[in-house]
Amino acid sequence: MSSSESSAPTVRATVVQASTIFYDTPATLDKAERLLAEAASYGSQLVVFPEAFVGGYPRGSNFGVSIGNRTLKGKEDFRKYHAAAIDVPGPEVDRLAAMAGKYKVFLVMGVIERDGYTLYCTVVFFNNQGCYLGKHRKLMPTALERIIWGFGDGSTVPVFDTPIGKIGAAICWENKMPLLRTAMYAKGIEIYCAPTADSREVWQASMTHIALEGGCFVLSANQFCRRKDYPAPPEYVFSGTEQDLTPESVVCAGGSVIISPSGTVLAGPNYDGEALITADLDVGEIARAKFDFDVVGHYARPEVLSLMVRDHPATPVCFTSEASHK
Amino acid sequence: MSSSESSAPTVRATVVQASTIFYDTPATLDKAERLLAEAASYGSQLVVFPEAFVGGYPRGSNFGVSIGNRTLKGKEDFRKYHAAAIDVPGPEVDRLAAMAGKYKVFLVMGVIERDGYTLYCTVVFFNNQGCYLGKHRKLMPTALERIIWGFGDGSTVPVFDTPIGKIGAAICWENKMPLLRTAMYAKGIEIYCAPTADSREVWQASMTHIALEGGCFVLSANQFCRRKDYPAPPEYVFSGTEQDLTPESVVCAGGSVIISPSGTVLAGPNYDGEALITADLDVGEIARAKFDFDVVGHYARPEVLSLMVRDHPATPVCFTSEASHK
Amino acid sequence: MSSSESSAPTVRATVVQASTIFYDTPATLDKAERLLAEAASYGSQLVVFPEAFVGGYPRGSNFGVSIGNRTLKGKEDFRKYHAAAIDVPGPEVDRLAAMAGKYKVFLVMGVIERDGYTLYCTVVFFNNQGCYLGKHRKLMPTALERIIWGFGDGSTVPVFDTPIGKIGAAICWENKMPLLRTAMYAKGIEIYCAPTADSREVWQASMTHIALEGGCFVLSANQFCRRKDYPAPPEYVFSGTEQDLTPESVVCAGGSVIISPSGTVLAGPNYDGEALITADLDVGEIARAKFDFDVVGHYARPEVLSLMVRDHPATPVCFTSEASHK
Amino acid sequence: MSSSESSAPTVRATVVQASTIFYDTPATLDKAERLLAEAASYGSQLVVFPEAFVGGYPRGSNFGVSIGNRTLKGKEDFRKYHAAAIDVPGPEVDRLAAMAGKYKVFLVMGVIERDGYTLYCTVVFFNNQGCYLGKHRKLMPTALERIIWGFGDGSTVPVFDTPIGKIGAAICWENKMPLLRTAMYAKGIEIYCAPTADSREVWQASMTHIALEGGCFVLSANQFCRRKDYPAPPEYVFSGTEQDLTPESVVCAGGSVIISPSGTVLAGPNYDGEALITADLDVGEIARAKFDFDVVGHYARPEVLSLMVRDHPATPVCFTSEASHK
Amino acid sequence: MSSSESSAPTVRATVVQASTIFYDTPATLDKAERLLAEAASYGSQLVVFPEAFVGGYPRGSNFGVSIGNRTLKGKEDFRKYHAAAIDVPGPEVDRLAAMAGKYKVFLVMGVIERDGYTLYCTVVFFNNQGCYLGKHRKLMPTALERIIWGFGDGSTVPVFDTPIGKIGAAICWENKMPLLRTAMYAKGIEIYCAPTADSREVWQASMTHIALEGGCFVLSANQFCRRKDYPAPPEYVFSGTEQDLTPESVVCAGGSVIISPSGTVLAGPNYDGEALITADLDVGEIARAKFDFDVVGHYARPEVLSLMVRDHPATPVCFTSEASHK
Amino acid sequence: MSSSESSAPTVRATVVQASTIFYDTPATLDKAERLLAEAASYGSQLVVFPEAFVGGYPRGSNFGVSIGNRTLKGKEDFRKYHAAAIDVPGPEVDRLAAMAGKYKVFLVMGVIERDGYTLYCTVVFFNNQGCYLGKHRKLMPTALERIIWGFGDGSTVPVFDTPIGKIGAAICWENKMPLLRTAMYAKGIEIYCAPTADSREVWQASMTHIALEGGCFVLSANQFCRRKDYPAPPEYVFSGTEQDLTPESVVCAGGSVIISPSGTVLAGPNYDGEALITADLDVGEIARAKFDFDVVGHYARPEVLSLMVRDHPATPVCFTSEASHK
Repeated sequence: MSSSESSAPTVRATVVQASTIFYDTPATLDKAERLLAEAASYGSQLVVFPEAFVGGYPRGSNFGVSIGNRTLKGKEDFRKYHAAAIDVPGPEVDRLAAMAGKYKVFLVMGVIERDGYTLYCTVVFFNNQGCYLGKHRKLMPTALERIIWGFGDGSTVPVFDTPIGKIGAAICWENKMPLLRTAMYAKGIEIYCAPTADSREVWQASMTHIALEGGCFVLSANQFCRRKDYPAPPEYVFSGTEQDLTPESVVCAGGSVIISPSGTVLAGPNYDGEALITADLDVGEIARAKFDFDVVGHYARPEVLSLMVRDHPATPVCFTSEASHK
Repeated sequence: MSSSESSAPTVRATVVQASTIFYDTPATLDKAERLLAEAASYGSQLVVFPEAFVGGYPRGSNFGVSIGNRTLKGKEDFRKYHAAAIDVPGPEVDRLAAMAGKYKVFLVMGVIERDGYTLYCTVVFFNNQGCYLGKHRKLMPTALERIIWGFGDGSTVPVFDTPIGKIGAAICWENKMPLLRTAMYAKGIEIYCAPTADSREVWQASMTHIALEGGCFVLSANQFCRRKDYPAPPEYVFSGTEQDLTPESVVCAGGSVIISPSGTVLAGPNYDGEALITADLDVGEIARAKFDFDVVGHYARPEVLSLMVRDHPATPVCFTSEASHK
Repeated sequence: MSSSESSAPTVRATVVQASTIFYDTPATLDKAERLLAEAASYGSQLVVFPEAFVGGYPRGSNFGVSIGNRTLKGKEDFRKYHAAAIDVPGPEVDRLAAMAGKYKVFLVMGVIERDGYTLYCTVVFFNNQGCYLGKHRKLMPTALERIIWGFGDGSTVPVFDTPIGKIGAAICWENKMPLLRTAMYAKGIEIYCAPTADSREVWQASMTHIALEGGCFVLSANQFCRRKDYPAPPEYVFSGTEQDLTPESVVCAGGSVIISPSGTVLAGPNYDGEALITADLDVGEIARAKFDFDVVGHYARPEVLSLMVRDHPATPVCFTSEASHK
Repeated sequence: MSSSESSAPTVRATVVQASTIFYDTPATLDKAERLLAEAASYGSQLVVFPEAFVGGYPRGSNFGVSIGNRTLKGKEDFRKYHAAAIDVPGPEVDRLAAMAGKYKVFLVMGVIERDGYTLYCTVVFFNNQGCYLGKHRKLMPTALERIIWGFGDGSTVPVFDTPIGKIGAAICWENKMPLLRTAMYAKGIEIYCAPTADSREVWQASMTHIALEGGCFVLSANQFCRRKDYPAPPEYVFSGTEQDLTPESVVCAGGSVIISPSGTVLAGPNYDGEALITADLDVGEIARAKFDFDVVGHYARPEVLSLMVRDHPATPVCFTSEASHK
Repeated sequence: MSSSESSAPTVRATVVQASTIFYDTPATLDKAERLLAEAASYGSQLVVFPEAFVGGYPRGSNFGVSIGNRTLKGKEDFRKYHAAAIDVPGPEVDRLAAMAGKYKVFLVMGVIERDGYTLYCTVVFFNNQGCYLGKHRKLMPTALERIIWGFGDGSTVPVFDTPIGKIGAAICWENKMPLLRTAMYAKGIEIYCAPTADSREVWQASMTHIALEGGCFVLSANQFCRRKDYPAPPEYVFSGTEQDLTPESVVCAGGSVIISPSGTVLAGPNYDGEALITADLDVGEIARAKFDFDVVGHYARPEVLSLMVRDHPATPVCFTSEASHK
Repeated sequence: MSSSESSAPTVRATVVQASTIFYDTPATLDKAERLLAEAASYGSQLVVFPEAFVGGYPRGSNFGVSIGNRTLKGKEDFRKYHAAAIDVPGPEVDRLAAMAGKYKVFLVMGVIERDGYTLYCTVVFFNNQGCYLGKHRKLMPTALERIIWGFGDGSTVPVFDTPIGKIGAAICWENKMPLLRTAMYAKGIEIYCAPTADSREVWQASMTHIALEGGCFVLSANQFCRRKDYPAPPEYVFSGTEQDLTPESVVCAGGSVIISPSGTVLAGPNYDGEALITADLDVGEIARAKFDFDVVGHYARPEVLSLMVRDHPATPVCFTSEASHK
């Protein structure tokens, strides 16, 4: 973003609130394209999808695991979930890149990434030229997610400097990690994407706080899912609550929202159904907000508090002849 | 807190929402004692006062300063403000300690501390035995505060391990500093006091976020002030808005609040007037909340993100003959 | 172990196969002392307890967690589990040290360690003089354990050089981590303790393999538990299987075993009930086994394969004034 | 292996348990072809032969060596053994490639490789199109093998990504090297071949452990040899035991086995005679197993433990003009 | 050695030709001291002992190993041999240092070094002040030695610059390694010690060649042993030849020798019995010889032929906190 | 050499010990043919001539050179010596090739090569089909040779793989260069030719050592010359010794020798006169010897010691338009 103009530009941004077509990655990509096309049709320049949109968020599943035990059904659930995940890069990433180029939007997409037999909850980024820019792997999964997803490292916490602003993402409860947020602030993030799976009301407080703390726009995208968006039992079971659910029951209520650097809610939160939530981001708000509080700038106290970010890749095995054999 | 009990204890806590008696420190201390006695009378074990309650928050003043200029009036305003501040330790601190012991409460008090001719926005801590425990100096003043208050250092970010829990404080927009909060989390803070002067609604979002992020109780105390709580013009002028104000005009709307580690608002926010806001803190909530998210425990990624806190005193002059001259 | 003798010495070692008294840490310590006394009475010099003997292994619990959801009951389960854990060091560690000194045995004990609000699955070591030697924190919990226990770091992988041999421990599926085992081999481990919660038959294959791979004695201790060793439902529920269980049902079948460096099973595996499993370890077997295969000695290829162990502590926040403020 | 299928494919694999025709490499290749044809006749897609099948495993020989001494007979034994070895690549490798293509099987064959006057214990790999893929040289010979075989380096530890899965091999006690196995895991091995000469029962424990540790299929092939499979004395002598042997005496008992990633024995171990041991490998088992334990994925701790693999060739003399002048 | 004097100095040097007292390290050290005292008594400034003098060269043993087999007796032989080895540094090294200081001689001693459960064939160096200078570990054992000794690395190929000249050592057939010799020449070796176990006549050719090639004094020390110097059968067996031996049979014939840089034999070779072989080394011979041929000087062709010596330690496991935990 | 035969072949080889006919190259070639015919007549397959046999070794001459001075006589001596040298290739080389073909022998011939006005001490190789194979130029002349001969480079250190074995040559004191020998070993040399001009006894030690070190046959050919084999004074002067010489005085005593890979002298050394020295080389000796010691195979430590050979041509002027101008 050039910064010397007398009036600041505006960026039209959309957060997508929609459900994965579970266990069907090709159909999910088709759905993504329809949503992307719709957002582009009314001029959106940036589209942010929810966490795990491609690959799916296996809500309600416990993968057959209790302490010290696991079931064959749970292992097979994992095998199918693994099969629905995508390689990054890989053919599905190529398709997403092509979509971004076709509709000329910047695209931020939550995916389940497959790296051998470990999965990662990942966000992939594309520019409006159809180029894959890079990825962010969730650093720390929450609760039961820790049995299905691996842990990212410091090498995939990107902030991309694009013509519409500096874009990055933190996924779901990563947004609660103050040191991670600070690393992203230090990279100059201006459009802070928060794909999530958390539809509780308190989530809104964190989104507002981050906008204020970081002096950035916050775009939080969550899925809106009904029971019927997942396979029917017994193939797929919402453990403990299955008996209370009808096909129409809402199992993830959304709450997608766009907030300005001053903490003003620009669009959403929407708890009603699948939707595209759109706002025009007044880029000048960033400077206005940071006048008061610049978290890694004038308001930092680096001589007292300094954060070390180890952003090299951490791999269990390193081959001298090449970066990776995988 | 002993940790082996089968059911967790409860702590009754009060945040005070009241105004300084401006330029009259003895009277302010009298007022503090009345409020303390009242809180104690219905069983409160912990009482938290707003930022700058002793010494005053000079809201609306600009101390005669514009860029490149200052006025004699402004200099005299500072002289009077300096005179109303207190030494820490000093006689006013002794009086506060005595109050805490008399009413058997843990006391967290916002004061303006005088250290030579520099002032600090400070919080002082007392236990229910009448002992002064220590102080926290605001690390980073906001905007115009930077011309009247100095900057604290890393040596005064205490968290005290008391029988009712681990207590500390961050003042006003310090609460927006993620690295400072993380330092306090690392010290194990359980009862997080947030004396403030910010009565905007968005402040509530940050308080809720901190409770969730830190897995701690958040107690935010703000003054509730009308124009008449300050000296009348021309002695004291609300620059720029004075003409719009009547003596009854609310110039600081309060918003004091108590929030649990799960983000539940236990009491407040109160925007109505001076008040004591009280809640019973169920200590077991901390473990229940940290089960999901322990910011410096199981949810940290220390091998990726690590914060260095330089918590030794930073003094411009150091004498080799003794550890400290203060 | 002095190495110039003409005939090698023998060490009598016992692995304890017994159940925690769940949610009752003092009673569990009493039980530990009874078992220790019995082992000492017939000359045992080393006693190894199972994983999580103090604090308990919450088998069958799911802590109310499914993907994206958690229950209040699960949070309260965690609070109680947290309350039953112990600080290391702390009073329970002092008691264990005193036991080891009283009965003059080397003691290796599985505990649940509480560090603030994060728990660790830890093994604590004591010498036969009653001194606490140090601890090992499980590096990587398995499956659902990842939601109740934090992850250890490289600073707590000790091998202690004692008069009866070099002793260390890996917990449960850590034993499946080839790089961790190699780090312990490099520290010269001779008596490899494997406290576990895995009673499947394939566990025996890994124990035998490790003895051969490491050229060390392997002592695997598992709990033997019936349903009645845990609180009755509804306080404590074996998720998914509760309906199939009677109070006498075996929920953890033991399988504790002692294996020599040549892969010979010296005692156990026992799948019958609570028991003390004892064998005399012929120290000379180590040299005889390493003659053929010395995994970090003559059989290593360090110029091709070299392992880096980062064994400094990894902490999210570091204070310059001291190691830790907690 | 394509990974998005809804049900996982199956691979039929055979391990050959048969003896070399000692000192007669052409006849041994004829025998290999007969065995390969038989396996192919009932649909096997992958055939794994034992260590040193071509060239022979000189069991019982001591090559006339004691510490500080060697005999003329031993030197001549070596000359003949050297003469029976094969160049890689070379005419025998061409013949093996042709066999693999003719019978349309993936072929993993243990050979004695001749490189000048140093021999290597090598495994050569072929695809079902009749192409030689590459070789693995044993990194570290065991005991007396060190006087007849050289040591491989890090440049020949291949894992080949084939349509039936990722295939590699470790030979005999190499399988006891945890760092080597980890290097292969990092290369994504799915079908782990373990040609061996070890027929002891404890070998089975290591095979099961590796399947569990690596989350891979393990195919261990050993020769089944009687005394008469070797030249009669005095040309060839089983040192120390010759007097106890009849022509029918079993000198290598086999024990070839196929194990699944969950540790289930799918076929074998066979200790009865020459045999083809076949199983259908359910590829989905890999994902199911790695759900619990992915040794270089979600269960690794790379920030604590990281392995460096120097996989460039190590040659005593390097000519700038070309890779090798030999 | 100062090099500008008009007449070059002379160094009196002794090579010891004597047998270890097998399996009795304290008695062997006593014998070493007697021999050292005797050499010192007639003015020797440098005393070189044979390979493995301390710890013993287990000539004739095969440690029960044939290809693919090993015996229990062989394993126990190794255990005893391991027990007779010494740690470096360690108490026996301290004793050797004290001897060197007491008799004021430079001492070069062949030992069997124990590092955990791997043994190395090592030479230890001491100055005439009683200081331990360092060690050389044999890089490559010969034939059956490879089953009892590990392999040194490039970090222990020292050449010590002493007042009597630059001293280093290569052990037995290491002396046949042209690249190792060149590394030592490049370090400036002047007094080249060749402790050995090879008493064949052709050994003399190599010694003469090295003196000429390196332009250095060569001091080769071998044991002179009769059958009776080893334990009697059946405890210790000369495999294959035991039946031909009487207690008086010579099993190692010595051949210790001292040669000048011009290839002149100064003393020895002695094949008669235990002996001290002494010569005065005319240091000026070095320059006279190198006038014609300076192998790493004027006679090198570095632009065509250059040797890389990797002289860092190669360890299978490296701990970041310290050099070694062993 | 085919390698699968059950018994190894034999090669009959001859070294020629004879004098150049000085300053008469055609006559020298005639003499060469007579000697070749004689060797062929009793079945020799390989004939090796001494250093500088064609062109002559100007023993005793100082070419009028002392430090800072040269004489006209010396310059003229060089002109005549230059005239007697041959171009390679060239007509004399063609004649030598024809001889080899006619007598069906492999021929290794020392020559003085003329390249413009610089001379090289060169060995030329021919097969038994009458083909010139290539040449080796002496890398490093010794002492005064450096004023008459240039220095070879790494591009002419060939080893030719022929039906009778791998053949190469090093000239005179080149044989003392360990790195050059190692380069030749790495090229697999089996029949190591050492044309020389050194007839000292210590030369034999080096020849034996090389056979052992390289595991190859060594064939050393030296001229046997009397004073009368050179022009009489004053045309040709043995500087300094001329006065002690009669025409019959031996000025080069020969010492030609053939040694097996085990260090056994097969023929020679002959110090009596001109002679053909012949032996049958048992090729199996190579494998038997390398069983113990394979200098660039199993006995190398490439990860510690590695030699770089720059074997591209080194020319002072290089023309971009063609690969080589010579």
